[in-house]
Amino acid sequence: MAPRRVNIGVVGLGRMGKRHVHTLVSRTPRANVVAVCTNLEHELEWARSNQDYKDFEIAVYDKYEDMLNHTGIEAVWVSTSTDVHAIQTKMGVQKGLHVMCEKPLSIHLEESQEVIDIADKHPQLKVMAAFSRRFDASYRDAAKKVLQERVIGKPYMIRAQTCDLLDTTGFFVRYATRNGGIFVDCAIHDIDLTLWYLDNPVPKACWATGTLQHHPELAESNDVDNAVGVVEYWGGKIAYYHCSRTQIHGHDVSTEVSGTEGKISVNLIPRANNVVVNDKRGMTHEVQEEYWQRFEYAFETEAREFIDSILTDGPVPVPLKTGQKVMEIARALQSALWSGEVSRWNEKGELIESGERKINGALNGHAK
Amino acid sequence: MAPRRVNIGVVGLGRMGKRHVHTLVSRTPRANVVAVCTNLEHELEWARSNQDYKDFEIAVYDKYEDMLNHTGIEAVWVSTSTDVHAIQTKMGVQKGLHVMCEKPLSIHLEESQEVIDIADKHPQLKVMAAFSRRFDASYRDAAKKVLQERVIGKPYMIRAQTCDLLDTTGFFVRYATRNGGIFVDCAIHDIDLTLWYLDNPVPKACWATGTLQHHPELAESNDVDNAVGVVEYWGGKIAYYHCSRTQIHGHDVSTEVSGTEGKISVNLIPRANNVVVNDKRGMTHEVQEEYWQRFEYAFETEAREFIDSILTDGPVPVPLKTGQKVMEIARALQSALWSGEVSRWNEKGELIESGERKINGALNGHAK
Amino acid sequence: MAPRRVNIGVVGLGRMGKRHVHTLVSRTPRANVVAVCTNLEHELEWARSNQDYKDFEIAVYDKYEDMLNHTGIEAVWVSTSTDVHAIQTKMGVQKGLHVMCEKPLSIHLEESQEVIDIADKHPQLKVMAAFSRRFDASYRDAAKKVLQERVIGKPYMIRAQTCDLLDTTGFFVRYATRNGGIFVDCAIHDIDLTLWYLDNPVPKACWATGTLQHHPELAESNDVDNAVGVVEYWGGKIAYYHCSRTQIHGHDVSTEVSGTEGKISVNLIPRANNVVVNDKRGMTHEVQEEYWQRFEYAFETEAREFIDSILTDGPVPVPLKTGQKVMEIARALQSALWSGEVSRWNEKGELIESGERKINGALNGHAK
Amino acid sequence: MAPRRVNIGVVGLGRMGKRHVHTLVSRTPRANVVAVCTNLEHELEWARSNQDYKDFEIAVYDKYEDMLNHTGIEAVWVSTSTDVHAIQTKMGVQKGLHVMCEKPLSIHLEESQEVIDIADKHPQLKVMAAFSRRFDASYRDAAKKVLQERVIGKPYMIRAQTCDLLDTTGFFVRYATRNGGIFVDCAIHDIDLTLWYLDNPVPKACWATGTLQHHPELAESNDVDNAVGVVEYWGGKIAYYHCSRTQIHGHDVSTEVSGTEGKISVNLIPRANNVVVNDKRGMTHEVQEEYWQRFEYAFETEAREFIDSILTDGPVPVPLKTGQKVMEIARALQSALWSGEVSRWNEKGELIESGERKINGALNGHAK
Repeated sequence: MAPRRVNIGVVGLGRMGKRHVHTLVSRTPRANVVAVCTNLEHELEWARSNQDYKDFEIAVYDKYEDMLNHTGIEAVWVSTSTDVHAIQTKMGVQKGLHVMCEKPLSIHLEESQEVIDIADKHPQLKVMAAFSRRFDASYRDAAKKVLQERVIGKPYMIRAQTCDLLDTTGFFVRYATRNGGIFVDCAIHDIDLTLWYLDNPVPKACWATGTLQHHPELAESNDVDNAVGVVEYWGGKIAYYHCSRTQIHGHDVSTEVSGTEGKISVNLIPRANNVVVNDKRGMTHEVQEEYWQRFEYAFETEAREFIDSILTDGPVPVPLKTGQKVMEIARALQSALWSGEVSRWNEKGELIESGERKINGALNGHAK
Repeated sequence: MAPRRVNIGVVGLGRMGKRHVHTLVSRTPRANVVAVCTNLEHELEWARSNQDYKDFEIAVYDKYEDMLNHTGIEAVWVSTSTDVHAIQTKMGVQKGLHVMCEKPLSIHLEESQEVIDIADKHPQLKVMAAFSRRFDASYRDAAKKVLQERVIGKPYMIRAQTCDLLDTTGFFVRYATRNGGIFVDCAIHDIDLTLWYLDNPVPKACWATGTLQHHPELAESNDVDNAVGVVEYWGGKIAYYHCSRTQIHGHDVSTEVSGTEGKISVNLIPRANNVVVNDKRGMTHEVQEEYWQRFEYAFETEAREFIDSILTDGPVPVPLKTGQKVMEIARALQSALWSGEVSRWNEKGELIESGERKINGALNGHAK
Repeated sequence: MAPRRVNIGVVGLGRMGKRHVHTLVSRTPRANVVAVCTNLEHELEWARSNQDYKDFEIAVYDKYEDMLNHTGIEAVWVSTSTDVHAIQTKMGVQKGLHVMCEKPLSIHLEESQEVIDIADKHPQLKVMAAFSRRFDASYRDAAKKVLQERVIGKPYMIRAQTCDLLDTTGFFVRYATRNGGIFVDCAIHDIDLTLWYLDNPVPKACWATGTLQHHPELAESNDVDNAVGVVEYWGGKIAYYHCSRTQIHGHDVSTEVSGTEGKISVNLIPRANNVVVNDKRGMTHEVQEEYWQRFEYAFETEAREFIDSILTDGPVPVPLKTGQKVMEIARALQSALWSGEVSRWNEKGELIESGERKINGALNGHAK
Repeated sequence: MAPRRVNIGVVGLGRMGKRHVHTLVSRTPRANVVAVCTNLEHELEWARSNQDYKDFEIAVYDKYEDMLNHTGIEAVWVSTSTDVHAIQTKMGVQKGLHVMCEKPLSIHLEESQEVIDIADKHPQLKVMAAFSRRFDASYRDAAKKVLQERVIGKPYMIRAQTCDLLDTTGFFVRYATRNGGIFVDCAIHDIDLTLWYLDNPVPKACWATGTLQHHPELAESNDVDNAVGVVEYWGGKIAYYHCSRTQIHGHDVSTEVSGTEGKISVNLIPRANNVVVNDKRGMTHEVQEEYWQRFEYAFETEAREFIDSILTDGPVPVPLKTGQKVMEIARALQSALWSGEVSRWNEKGELIESGERKINGALNGHAK
């Protein structure tokens, strides 16, 4: 008797899709990748000629509907571009499949709500939001210390930055037009961490500003390449964020949680590995290039826990709706960035003020 | 023939006043402390019974006017509480003495302008603002790298925090009522660093929020014990600040300057010394308790350069008016914190919008 | 058609044996664990009741000979105690199976040479020594920098320490009687790194000393719980080692390679993860408890490369004989430790002097 | 009445002599430098034209005897080359002056013993050995933690390195011929720390080896530019040392003290200041160039405490004889380095074996 494994298909074979297939095949023993799907010709070619895929009998589809009909398929991993996350998740659920959906579910709150509603109608299916930091060993250790061991007393402030290495290939900028703006694209992990560590605080007001330093072409899509935002939460809690797409030294993602009895830092000093070079310049260590090097094993844990929730019929580690509140805050920051005005919520967390003025900080940066 | 030394008097014998006397006596060979002055009885007693003061023939005065008339006095170091900085500086200048004035000159922009004007009328006198970080070896090294060697390309963003150890004695809170609010009291060094490293940018807009975590009594003086503020500058530059009076681990003051070709960090990991304890908890190092441990030798350099500017009739390292622009920005952040509204400047740096609403973030934090 | 996988059996189900099975099952997609074997009753029970083993159809044997006869078995992973490594490796090879053998092959040089000779007679079989640090990302990065990029010029000195967490369970001490002494047990990875980074230098002389701080019972087996040794190599190269079984803060394994143009450090500051706690004591990070936390993913790479060498009929990454030279040096250090005398080699690397005096340093430490 | 100050003369105006004058003049308010002395023409010229020296009325002598006769002189700071330390100290004492003598007193044990005997006959005079690390804030903090707070239980092992920046000027090599060899020149601070932290242990055996990597000309004076030595002490204590004159990244002096309950590290990661540069290479900090940057303020404390011991007639912080035991161990290591043989002591600390064979490791390194 073969081991009990979940038959899964992966849709989207971009950089991350390929990595998810890799993780599922090589580090998730209870997953059985039966199919992949993409509608991009170069990805199809790549997949069809991949010897590993042949060896592991992974079918390659160019139509999502066809993959959903693959014999024995039980689950789908949605790893496409943001604009089709919602529809593909919905289709998977309606087909009776478990679905892991990359963040964000949608940049439109109504659309993502619709998917959540559909998922709620299929409680037997595991439908999960992929917030990978929730599976990282360091963030989990921090959560244990903050929330269970209470080593910093009452937590009241988050400082978080998601600062990516400068992409000199231009790939990112082409992709940026569909991603909803820098806070939606980069800060949602930081906002998610805020909700986690501050125990689901209700936002009260936020403001943001930004600048264009390396990607003037982003001005066309009303975006910036560096932004700073502050969110005040009801009850005297505060979070502030820095998003950057223009780091020179590497992927610099760090988080600090301040509490009444101490502070916990995660990855304040990013390091590629344990090596230090001592030479004429002094002492130097390298920094991870991107989130993959930082979170490679978090993706393993994420995949395993999704598969386990299916096999054991347990709750998914990150429910779909977690992403909804995160997205509301990201969009309010985005609105503040674009308008220069403060966004405000009432105590129930309903957005009551949100500016409409055109972005100007970015254009200034660009103009210089 | 005795060496050429500057005869100096120190007014104010609080914690810092004593330290300045110490620095001048023991690490500033060209200074000759001839007198000290305080109107507080316990400080007077302490000074009168101090054997070092006797040995070094330091006269002790209880009236500032009297000290100004001490035979041979050439310079004054003003180290009193903020509310008398301006008047004492003015009196010193009018008496024909050089003056070093602790920051800030005044929390009232008109008052400090008046002193600046008077000083301008006495160009032969050295009148200097004491921004101690400008004399710190690390901040100077960072300035050299940023401004001269241009190792980070064009600098465009500052992240700075001035986070002080929690004061459990209550001393601070009693003092807080006269200091103008947390941004005026704590952030002005950070704002000064911003002007330094970003080459005197013109502010465009700012917003801030705060919370009360340990000192509910501050609510009476409309203050908070933690605040976060963001300042957008014209030309696509940004600075953001965190001020805290409630750190548990020590004095945690760090600064990061981001540029188009890199980032420079100063004191990201604060350390009391070079010792690490490896035990059951892991690896631990201590953190400086307060700014004195962090900046002890910056104060030495500051004192020496002030004395040198007198002896050589050279320019003072930090002109009085530097403090004026810093104070304007601090007060705009303070206004944003109190009102919840955005403060705005035009391209000439004239404040054009500033909210008046009552502070609410602080009260929330307090209420919880 | 099922993917091409190597059918492998693991002998020894102690702490590491279990971990190797785990790695092979869950992170080595081209390996197929078909059997395990142990002659210890409690390990047999544990294995027989293990649901994962049932799910993945892993046969459980109590006789090594029986496992070697398992239908379709192609390779063996030897993870038993040191005293049977050689015989089990030999039996595997003689049965026509590929073998991965945990370090050391044997503490008796003659015995290990015999196995090497037998393996040499079966060149079609992959027989590999498990020196896990050779597969660690940081050590590989260091090797690339030292040997390929030559960033430190000509390397001439190694400082290495293998310092293990104090084992308060007594398990280790019971095990220690068969492991050949502290240098044989702990330093062979460090010696292997020396041969790697200094490009197979020929030893010239060595001396060592040790002490007993926590495990006085080790005196019975003539062993110590902390030892320091220095090896001079021909050509002006030097390595020095510290082995400890009594660390309080965790697994502290670090290596430094000095060269004419710089120095490279690996893991000088051991860290369990990226989390730092800032509290009354200062700033603290935890340290890995043991080599597993430090080298978990090196074991993954090791397993994958062993399996790959079989599937592609390529050379094994670490030949069996690498361990032989390492063991010679370890035993010479051990001899120096026991005798208090210098061990010496001629320029061909033949041992020409080696002391016989009884250990005394250890007893001193114990006596105190 | 002028403050009570000690009139002091400094002999030797090399790099360190100038620095001691600087410290005494500018950071030691109770010292009054009345004279300096050197017999080197270029130093004399430099001193005679030094405006500060003129301003502070410092007499410049070319004969030590003359300086000893300077009116009012009370103390002498001996900062000449090692070969005249003993005679100048003796002359100072015989003249009735307090003496601070740079380390080492002499490389000849008989000569230094003679000076100690003479000093003992003048108990009213303060005669002190300048072991500057004893005055460093970090080493003192470590001593407090180890010896008073006992945070690491019973200390039993020292690892210490004194690794100096490569001197490409050739100055050092010219100087090296008189300094007694690398362990005598570089390791005596490390040995002193060992005696301090391990509470004056009695040496039992030692061995050492070395290599020549950058300074082949040292072979003429039978010296090496890198050496490693291990000292076993009676009672199960161990210290091991690395001395280097060829570091590329800076002055890398670190010390670790292992105890039964933990380990304390001092300066494991040397840093020039708090600045980190984040750029394409990763994250880099600079390292101090030499001991002056590392110990500048230790020299201040040393000078103040010497002066205080005179003014208060208290004991000197580091008695002359401390250096004697240190020198014995340094010379035994030197002997082991030169001979390749083990040096041994009996339980009373009397040297009973010491090799005579010619150094060979160094020549090997050189030959390559």
